[in-house]
Amino acid sequence: MRSRTTLGLVLAMAVAAAAGCDRDDRGEAAGPPADGAAPPPAVEVPGTAVAPAATQATPAPTAPTGGEGAADPLRATAQAMFGIIPEAVTALRGQPLSAAQVELGRMLFFDPRLSRSHLITCNTCHSLGTGGADNVPVSIGHGWQRGPRNSPTVLNAVFNAAQFWDGRAADLAEQAKGPVQASVEMNSTPELVVETLNSIPQYVERFAAAFPGAGDAVSFDNMALALEAFEATLVTPGARFDRWLQGDDAAIDATERRGLELFVSSGCASCHNGRNFGGQAYFPFGVIERPGADILPEGDKGRFEVTATATDEYVFRASPLRNVELTAPYFHSGQVWDLEQAVAIMGTAQLGREISGDEAEAIAAFLRTLTGRQPQVEYPVLPPSTARTPRPVAQ
Amino acid sequence: MRSRTTLGLVLAMAVAAAAGCDRDDRGEAAGPPADGAAPPPAVEVPGTAVAPAATQATPAPTAPTGGEGAADPLRATAQAMFGIIPEAVTALRGQPLSAAQVELGRMLFFDPRLSRSHLITCNTCHSLGTGGADNVPVSIGHGWQRGPRNSPTVLNAVFNAAQFWDGRAADLAEQAKGPVQASVEMNSTPELVVETLNSIPQYVERFAAAFPGAGDAVSFDNMALALEAFEATLVTPGARFDRWLQGDDAAIDATERRGLELFVSSGCASCHNGRNFGGQAYFPFGVIERPGADILPEGDKGRFEVTATATDEYVFRASPLRNVELTAPYFHSGQVWDLEQAVAIMGTAQLGREISGDEAEAIAAFLRTLTGRQPQVEYPVLPPSTARTPRPVAQ
Repeated sequence: MRSRTTLGLVLAMAVAAAAGCDRDDRGEAAGPPADGAAPPPAVEVPGTAVAPAATQATPAPTAPTGGEGAADPLRATAQAMFGIIPEAVTALRGQPLSAAQVELGRMLFFDPRLSRSHLITCNTCHSLGTGGADNVPVSIGHGWQRGPRNSPTVLNAVFNAAQFWDGRAADLAEQAKGPVQASVEMNSTPELVVETLNSIPQYVERFAAAFPGAGDAVSFDNMALALEAFEATLVTPGARFDRWLQGDDAAIDATERRGLELFVSSGCASCHNGRNFGGQAYFPFGVIERPGADILPEGDKGRFEVTATATDEYVFRASPLRNVELTAPYFHSGQVWDLEQAVAIMGTAQLGREISGDEAEAIAAFLRTLTGRQPQVEYPVLPPSTARTPRPVAQ
Repeated sequence: MRSRTTLGLVLAMAVAAAAGCDRDDRGEAAGPPADGAAPPPAVEVPGTAVAPAATQATPAPTAPTGGEGAADPLRATAQAMFGIIPEAVTALRGQPLSAAQVELGRMLFFDPRLSRSHLITCNTCHSLGTGGADNVPVSIGHGWQRGPRNSPTVLNAVFNAAQFWDGRAADLAEQAKGPVQASVEMNSTPELVVETLNSIPQYVERFAAAFPGAGDAVSFDNMALALEAFEATLVTPGARFDRWLQGDDAAIDATERRGLELFVSSGCASCHNGRNFGGQAYFPFGVIERPGADILPEGDKGRFEVTATATDEYVFRASPLRNVELTAPYFHSGQVWDLEQAVAIMGTAQLGREISGDEAEAIAAFLRTLTGRQPQVEYPVLPPSTARTPRPVAQ
């Protein structure tokens, strides 16, 4: 979609693509991965991907009988390509979400004792006060070391097909184990985490209640499952776009609507689709023109480091764009602070298309309609350490 | 009180001392500083100090008519020396607490943009999940630099006569300005904070609403006042000791009661008194025997650095002991992790008295009855930065 096309043609193509697609988002009792689905060209799709499924939860499109309430082709297209964020996720991998796991996960998410220094929490880099990210170029961890990439938001991350910029974790439970162990992040080990949790009687009780029937309830795997359960609750329903998608014409204004049209007609939605507007599949950064090394550092080859496949050099997961106005700076390098500028860079790099300032403003205005209600989370009161709790190590 | 005395004599002395004292705690519409009150020997009392006032909120002691409900001399003494934590603080310096300031302060308390790196919040070192402190020997701040002293808890800090280990801030508003500017903590400046807040329209609105009638509502002083207002809500009522003090005999057990008796009879309560069990006045660390340099580093001369008075060398504010079981490690150096050991060190250093293992256990058991209900705080959703917001600087 490298040349301009008429909106009508693009919409027709988009609807056809969506209709022919049996892929689905993760989360909310999503079905098993549709491994047989053919991946789109130059895209690696790990199991599950884009989803028209959310439209099942939306009102049926108004019948195209003309006059007030006439079908809006843009809305119909958007319903096929995107989807709303549900009020809540109630199941993971077909299992109902466990309240005990969610509550335990909330405590762990904010517990600095998962880090070797006892200073860094999940919330440090995925702050629930600032869009589920940390709003710095790259995260800073143990010993003030800089991580290699910008922290992706935890909000709605449950709907991503895989986690991390390179998709190296299949789900949030697998993801949660990464930063805890990364030497530049929390710098702990599974053994240290388990020893720490076992030294705190209240945690031992809570793990036993959250994972009944298991032998050793306190385990690194169960820590990760509890974190995943809590993170599955961090969804942001009620965005203006979602209200518009469900039929509220007044929820977005003319500029924002034009931004959506441009988002679809320019090809942005080819990669940024599904209810999360991304997070479903992988694409080369610089499919048309590679950005400069400031934005695409040469040393970070993206998904190539996961697959060791030459075609995966500089390939990254399409960023989910929900709440994008809250998660600057942008790209895996975190080097672009301005949303309009990020849109323009995408035009040049991915679409081979000069997006004008006016168009970038409209698209950015549309993207700001993707900001939903932020999760209301009570800061947990954590159980105290004991004499057996390993002490923090700041070195 | 360097030799053993009978409990009866000590109780009589304590009651007499409390009765002759017109000092009062801070917070909760406390009266003006009783500057005329004679300070106890070797103690500098800045304005306000220990308080029997809280007993006004407790039921009248049971009439001493013998039999069930007979007056408990230990309770009467404790009511005179200590006091309960109220359910809420409703006024500061005689002014009703402003809901708009409290809400703004809650946001600021968790906002990393008060730090130059956009990574460190008030809550980093005064975590509401872990007793209002950070549970590491000394706090770690900008660039992973170590601060000079252990982070004191913010919980019930409103009741302290002054803030910091050396009392260099008269109140929480003055205190709040310190860490924001300290190069080893948040490393910002008043100018940078004001520029940052002014760049965020929602903050500008909230400051205007919280500080009506003022010229420039967004100011470093008002930031501090809002933080103070929020912190004044961080009180921990309902401790088992408080319930016992109010007449519930079953709220503490025999060991804990013995610990309280020892706490009073051994002289601990000479410094750790008032409703906060400390925080009211200053004392040399090592009044009898100076601890080793591991616990009392020679380079930190305490209040001497504030007053430049020779008698203030190695003088520190008596630590408030509310929730002390949650705030290890102990002392300004943060070098002692075990509460029983801390009690024993205090015996040697401050009282010239070898506290036996059995006694230390009883006193520590009593101190654990000072843990109150921890504040339930919703994690704030923070207003997003704008293009005008100064960017984080991690260097």
